[in-house]
Amino acid sequence: MNGLEKNVHVFLGCESEYEDAKIVLFGAPFDSTTSYRPGTRFASSAIRNESYGIETFSPYQDKDLEDINVFDSGDLELPFGSPERALEDIEKRASIILDDGKIPCMIGGEHLVTLGAVRAAAKRYENLCIVHFDAHADLRDEYLGVELSHACVMRRCYDLLGDERIYQFGIRSGTRDEFEFAKVHTKMQRFNFDGLDKAVQKIGQNPVYFTLDLDVLDPKDFPGTGTPEAGGVGFNELLGAIEKISKLNIIAFDINELSPPYDQSGRSTALACKLLREILLRFY
Amino acid sequence: MNGLEKNVHVFLGCESEYEDAKIVLFGAPFDSTTSYRPGTRFASSAIRNESYGIETFSPYQDKDLEDINVFDSGDLELPFGSPERALEDIEKRASIILDDGKIPCMIGGEHLVTLGAVRAAAKRYENLCIVHFDAHADLRDEYLGVELSHACVMRRCYDLLGDERIYQFGIRSGTRDEFEFAKVHTKMQRFNFDGLDKAVQKIGQNPVYFTLDLDVLDPKDFPGTGTPEAGGVGFNELLGAIEKISKLNIIAFDINELSPPYDQSGRSTALACKLLREILLRFY
Amino acid sequence: MNGLEKNVHVFLGCESEYEDAKIVLFGAPFDSTTSYRPGTRFASSAIRNESYGIETFSPYQDKDLEDINVFDSGDLELPFGSPERALEDIEKRASIILDDGKIPCMIGGEHLVTLGAVRAAAKRYENLCIVHFDAHADLRDEYLGVELSHACVMRRCYDLLGDERIYQFGIRSGTRDEFEFAKVHTKMQRFNFDGLDKAVQKIGQNPVYFTLDLDVLDPKDFPGTGTPEAGGVGFNELLGAIEKISKLNIIAFDINELSPPYDQSGRSTALACKLLREILLRFY
Amino acid sequence: MNGLEKNVHVFLGCESEYEDAKIVLFGAPFDSTTSYRPGTRFASSAIRNESYGIETFSPYQDKDLEDINVFDSGDLELPFGSPERALEDIEKRASIILDDGKIPCMIGGEHLVTLGAVRAAAKRYENLCIVHFDAHADLRDEYLGVELSHACVMRRCYDLLGDERIYQFGIRSGTRDEFEFAKVHTKMQRFNFDGLDKAVQKIGQNPVYFTLDLDVLDPKDFPGTGTPEAGGVGFNELLGAIEKISKLNIIAFDINELSPPYDQSGRSTALACKLLREILLRFY
Amino acid sequence: MNGLEKNVHVFLGCESEYEDAKIVLFGAPFDSTTSYRPGTRFASSAIRNESYGIETFSPYQDKDLEDINVFDSGDLELPFGSPERALEDIEKRASIILDDGKIPCMIGGEHLVTLGAVRAAAKRYENLCIVHFDAHADLRDEYLGVELSHACVMRRCYDLLGDERIYQFGIRSGTRDEFEFAKVHTKMQRFNFDGLDKAVQKIGQNPVYFTLDLDVLDPKDFPGTGTPEAGGVGFNELLGAIEKISKLNIIAFDINELSPPYDQSGRSTALACKLLREILLRFY
Amino acid sequence: MNGLEKNVHVFLGCESEYEDAKIVLFGAPFDSTTSYRPGTRFASSAIRNESYGIETFSPYQDKDLEDINVFDSGDLELPFGSPERALEDIEKRASIILDDGKIPCMIGGEHLVTLGAVRAAAKRYENLCIVHFDAHADLRDEYLGVELSHACVMRRCYDLLGDERIYQFGIRSGTRDEFEFAKVHTKMQRFNFDGLDKAVQKIGQNPVYFTLDLDVLDPKDFPGTGTPEAGGVGFNELLGAIEKISKLNIIAFDINELSPPYDQSGRSTALACKLLREILLRFY
Repeated sequence: MNGLEKNVHVFLGCESEYEDAKIVLFGAPFDSTTSYRPGTRFASSAIRNESYGIETFSPYQDKDLEDINVFDSGDLELPFGSPERALEDIEKRASIILDDGKIPCMIGGEHLVTLGAVRAAAKRYENLCIVHFDAHADLRDEYLGVELSHACVMRRCYDLLGDERIYQFGIRSGTRDEFEFAKVHTKMQRFNFDGLDKAVQKIGQNPVYFTLDLDVLDPKDFPGTGTPEAGGVGFNELLGAIEKISKLNIIAFDINELSPPYDQSGRSTALACKLLREILLRFY
Repeated sequence: MNGLEKNVHVFLGCESEYEDAKIVLFGAPFDSTTSYRPGTRFASSAIRNESYGIETFSPYQDKDLEDINVFDSGDLELPFGSPERALEDIEKRASIILDDGKIPCMIGGEHLVTLGAVRAAAKRYENLCIVHFDAHADLRDEYLGVELSHACVMRRCYDLLGDERIYQFGIRSGTRDEFEFAKVHTKMQRFNFDGLDKAVQKIGQNPVYFTLDLDVLDPKDFPGTGTPEAGGVGFNELLGAIEKISKLNIIAFDINELSPPYDQSGRSTALACKLLREILLRFY
Repeated sequence: MNGLEKNVHVFLGCESEYEDAKIVLFGAPFDSTTSYRPGTRFASSAIRNESYGIETFSPYQDKDLEDINVFDSGDLELPFGSPERALEDIEKRASIILDDGKIPCMIGGEHLVTLGAVRAAAKRYENLCIVHFDAHADLRDEYLGVELSHACVMRRCYDLLGDERIYQFGIRSGTRDEFEFAKVHTKMQRFNFDGLDKAVQKIGQNPVYFTLDLDVLDPKDFPGTGTPEAGGVGFNELLGAIEKISKLNIIAFDINELSPPYDQSGRSTALACKLLREILLRFY
Repeated sequence: MNGLEKNVHVFLGCESEYEDAKIVLFGAPFDSTTSYRPGTRFASSAIRNESYGIETFSPYQDKDLEDINVFDSGDLELPFGSPERALEDIEKRASIILDDGKIPCMIGGEHLVTLGAVRAAAKRYENLCIVHFDAHADLRDEYLGVELSHACVMRRCYDLLGDERIYQFGIRSGTRDEFEFAKVHTKMQRFNFDGLDKAVQKIGQNPVYFTLDLDVLDPKDFPGTGTPEAGGVGFNELLGAIEKISKLNIIAFDINELSPPYDQSGRSTALACKLLREILLRFY
Repeated sequence: MNGLEKNVHVFLGCESEYEDAKIVLFGAPFDSTTSYRPGTRFASSAIRNESYGIETFSPYQDKDLEDINVFDSGDLELPFGSPERALEDIEKRASIILDDGKIPCMIGGEHLVTLGAVRAAAKRYENLCIVHFDAHADLRDEYLGVELSHACVMRRCYDLLGDERIYQFGIRSGTRDEFEFAKVHTKMQRFNFDGLDKAVQKIGQNPVYFTLDLDVLDPKDFPGTGTPEAGGVGFNELLGAIEKISKLNIIAFDINELSPPYDQSGRSTALACKLLREILLRFY
Repeated sequence: MNGLEKNVHVFLGCESEYEDAKIVLFGAPFDSTTSYRPGTRFASSAIRNESYGIETFSPYQDKDLEDINVFDSGDLELPFGSPERALEDIEKRASIILDDGKIPCMIGGEHLVTLGAVRAAAKRYENLCIVHFDAHADLRDEYLGVELSHACVMRRCYDLLGDERIYQFGIRSGTRDEFEFAKVHTKMQRFNFDGLDKAVQKIGQNPVYFTLDLDVLDPKDFPGTGTPEAGGVGFNELLGAIEKISKLNIIAFDINELSPPYDQSGRSTALACKLLREILLRFY
């Protein structure tokens, strides 16, 4: 061959073949229901582009992405303006990966995309729990008259899973109704990760979907998001929390709500890349 | 009274009472179906804010906004992620204004919002024609499987109005299919305003909905838009074309596709303000 | 009525009538004496616009803006280039509010605007104290030959109030002369809020004007300001300090020095909105 | 000597000694009265910095800055918030240069700074005429109650010089009153340079102050300005107009209203540098 | 298969296999010698990303990218800081494509990259001519003591090809020496495309390397470049010039000097995408 | 004299004559080998410009820049694209200063520039040690085939100095090979400044070159850098570390890797200015 291959574009170090992979990445570039400031549609592409600015080696774990098998299947082409159709496409992709005995890792997009992947997981796993790191409760029953909205995503997950299945951490924004709902139906920790050890213990070996809304981070660490909420957790705290939950039986996960246009410095994308490296190495 | 009134926020010089107004402004901040780069949701608010950077007086027409009666009713609160619902809300607002014998002037938002107002107009006016200035044909039958998309808006209008009712100018982007469709079903002038005089003559006193996608302007004049297409018309050309169509029986109109985040200089918003002043003075 | 009202533009949840309001907001968009990087003139408008990105409910206090009565009277139209005239207009507005037995809350603007409101307060309240959170001492006697400058505002307040009336916290920038002056004439705590409890005790039930220069926050929390000074306090620290001073007899207050153009991410404005919500709920 | 000299910072190629110079540059970084969007205070520094991105040689004139004698005396330190004091400082600087038989070239700053230099010129030259290129008439008698405002600068010059001394070109914005005033008291050409030849002839050998508000250019050529007005002249047109007026007896001139923060691409500053090179070579 | 393929990232519509392709794209992301403002290293990636914002169909030519065979081989990984090594890698890539009887299309990068491809072409084609569209002469013999600099690239090509082989159009910046050199050794047209017809005739069927420095466009059309030079050609003019030279025997070509960071609106990248579509359809 | 001097442009308060100075500043605006995102070439100029936004007085040390003697010799003009030549020029400048018994303070530029100054120091001082604060190990033997790369700069210094001469702190990014290398050949502390006291003790009175890559700071404090790495040290921590090393025998130092284009807020440059003030006052 002459060195002239088609241009392949994957997340740093995720060059495994699909068959060999334990974790499979895909992007869900969708932000149609974002009510405030859109832009998360650009996240998955930006994360791939910018991942080449970091190293494959983690000095935190003394492990290297080159030693594990991850496959990056690129982005779904999702229909803007049609949340239900987008969720179907996401569910389909997640289902294939789950059925092949692999762990789907979805890169959002707005937080609503989580619902598609959770639907796929809930059909395959009884007793599914969700671990949810976020600044926002996302427990509204509807938002501006719409039920499939980023602001309702955990409520829709609740509709699927029922009481005491959703463990929420870092929450610092919501309506009074959402906080009242949480008191009864979910396990919610405001502002920080206090009580995470206990939650890990309680969940035990139940299958877990982990959803990470990156705005759980303080905007000083992560300005590139649509709805920055001061008073969040720090990067090292988040690394610590991820280490803790890595002992759980995580069968699927996502990171979402990076909005590259709102961080001209690029450091939010860089942080997301580094975090994804650390998560992949932890969860592998 | 003590000079402490509630803060009223209207487009420059549009301080008439509703009853006295001949033209009624409203904003339609919606961009959920935008497939490429969102941001037009911020247009109507930006136009109001920035309108105070220009004068009420037009040296082009020697007329002044303070001498005419326009009412600004603010923005609709539209549900992101639900195009059909958004179109209903728009249709409702336009219908009220039309029924009160006034001219609605909608500030988009993405181009799909036009469909809501056209529905209202088409129900009230037989023989409705559309004059459409745009860089894009917007004649797709569906886009990524969705029929209510900005890329389909003129096709949906066509579904309502039928053959030879839509006059398109400045078009310089589309699929081969769209250009084929236009040959048969609409009156399309590529790239510029050639033939506009003839079109004005042909339309005669039929009621006209005028829709102005601001990206008909060259990006050098108007960078602040989601899909900039080089090779467009100039600002003075556009002023000339608007003067020509002001002889028509315009019963409703809109300007759309300003996306303030894509023009850090603010000059696209400033141009939109100036253009809106000129249009209001021309159409009054 | 047909649902078509004039567009009213107020800070989130501040929809009370003037008569019912205990706190009255107004904006003072003025930055003519800013010597380094202007832009605070855009703060009050940005804060109103962006306030709709946060919730009315505070999970910190379990209180909601919808349960209290605040009136937003919009922005003063201040003459750029004429600080004395601007201060007169501000004093007039603050005086009306004070005379009506309400608490004025001014949104700057550069820090000089504080002088106008302090003049109004000092005329009405004997023994007025000022609590001043800031990165900068603002105690110069003149700056580039000018006495009405943002860099002199606390010195001008001192001229009105005299020794030991001004309590300064968080100060980390100034000339040697300013720090010498503070040793003799004000109560100054460098860098942080140490000693705030004692100060609260000492002030007792004297009437207090609270002025918050947002650059007291570290630039990592609050980059959107004209003169960012590393080494500042954190958001949670500031919330704590505000809780402490809420026990004082605050008769007027302001927040100033947000400069939206210097934070493209928008998070500084978002933080200012959240902080204003927390302050309104604390001081009510 | 060891090659370690103090860092001198001048406009490209303007390295003459003061004694030898025919033209003397100075910056007037002042924008306190700017009512809309400040930023011109950064212009003179940006122009010096960026001038090294262009060549000293002009392919338009086949001349080189290295062959002429221009001295750059740096920026005045002007007191923000005090227009009268700033104008005094400017007048003083311009007076020294004029008294030394040299041509002052002032780099603004907002347009008000012109008044300081015109005062100096008017005291030294009877029959002084002004040639004024601008988008805005700048003929208000007062603005927000202030007489020393950028929006009034030509009116204040008129107060000094009287009828038919001010020749205005390119004007496309103003109040009705300003345009009425111009009909009686100045020579105003709207939108373009038509009639410039005739004006040059009429002015003859009278001494001329030339003031160039760069926003006479269309924003497509020059987005980096506080008040962009669509419909302006092009760069080549402006070069042509400058060639025409170079036959006049120009005894002082300025360029103003570049606002670098509003053009992230830097091309407005680059254009200003190139234009200044061409003007210096033309007027020498 | 399950729909899960590796993520391939190519320019819009360039999905041919290598064997079938007549034109082969590759990126040369290198800008180490850029003396003023770097950033062209990001061009090829941005062009691929953003190409999906335009259509494959050209309404100018009534042709479609989907009907022609172009292969995109991705970007070279070039060593920053080592121009000679970078040029070797570029020459190698261009040589393979030329030897396979295909037309290389290189996307720069700074203009120096052209030298690598010209070396490959010059070794394979006697009588090679260069058609060069640019704002800058690029004819310096050295720049800051360096011979392999973007500012010298046409001089280095001249060293390879000799007198009267290089046809330059649109040039509007250079030192006096460069313009003197051009008078003797190249064919240079200042400012525009006058004389292009004659040049096409003179070149006849000689093999031609076409190099397009996008800054030949006026910055109003194309702000996203490191060294914007006012007074350039327009987009439609450039399309016309490209149509003219499409009659030549073009054996290789490049487009370079797009610097995405300097155009926050993205329209420069969008224009480059559209231009590349038009060039590919013209040259095919 | 008439007050018209040439415009001198130095870092705040560094107005000493060369002869009297103990510390001599110079800028090394070079970033040709930057592989990811260039921009550090703009740092030294930005630092001078923006230094006037801070005070000369330090409330941390109760000292003032006006009381010490520092000379600012401006920027070297370095040849982009030729690292070896650039390093020669840097070595020459540093050598002159060292030979005059003064302390060179270099403002980068990318980190490679350190090598030039270290070469000068190593020739003059036996037993030279390096104290290195950085996010990145910079210990690669080559990068993309190049040995003179920013990613290799500490390895090249190691080649000069040998084992156990380089003390590295804050390192949180590198390849596995670099961390293995460090275990054997340098003293490396990951993530923070633990062990700095011990290092200071061990170094004793050996001559020390201190190199500060500003990206050792967390990106929340310092976003304006090419390769932001989350998880870094804070500003106050860094001040503390600098106080500690100020007891060493520092014979030369540099600060590098500020990239102003990546921080639109300007706070990274402001922090660098403040830090440089504190370092100058500490090391004097």
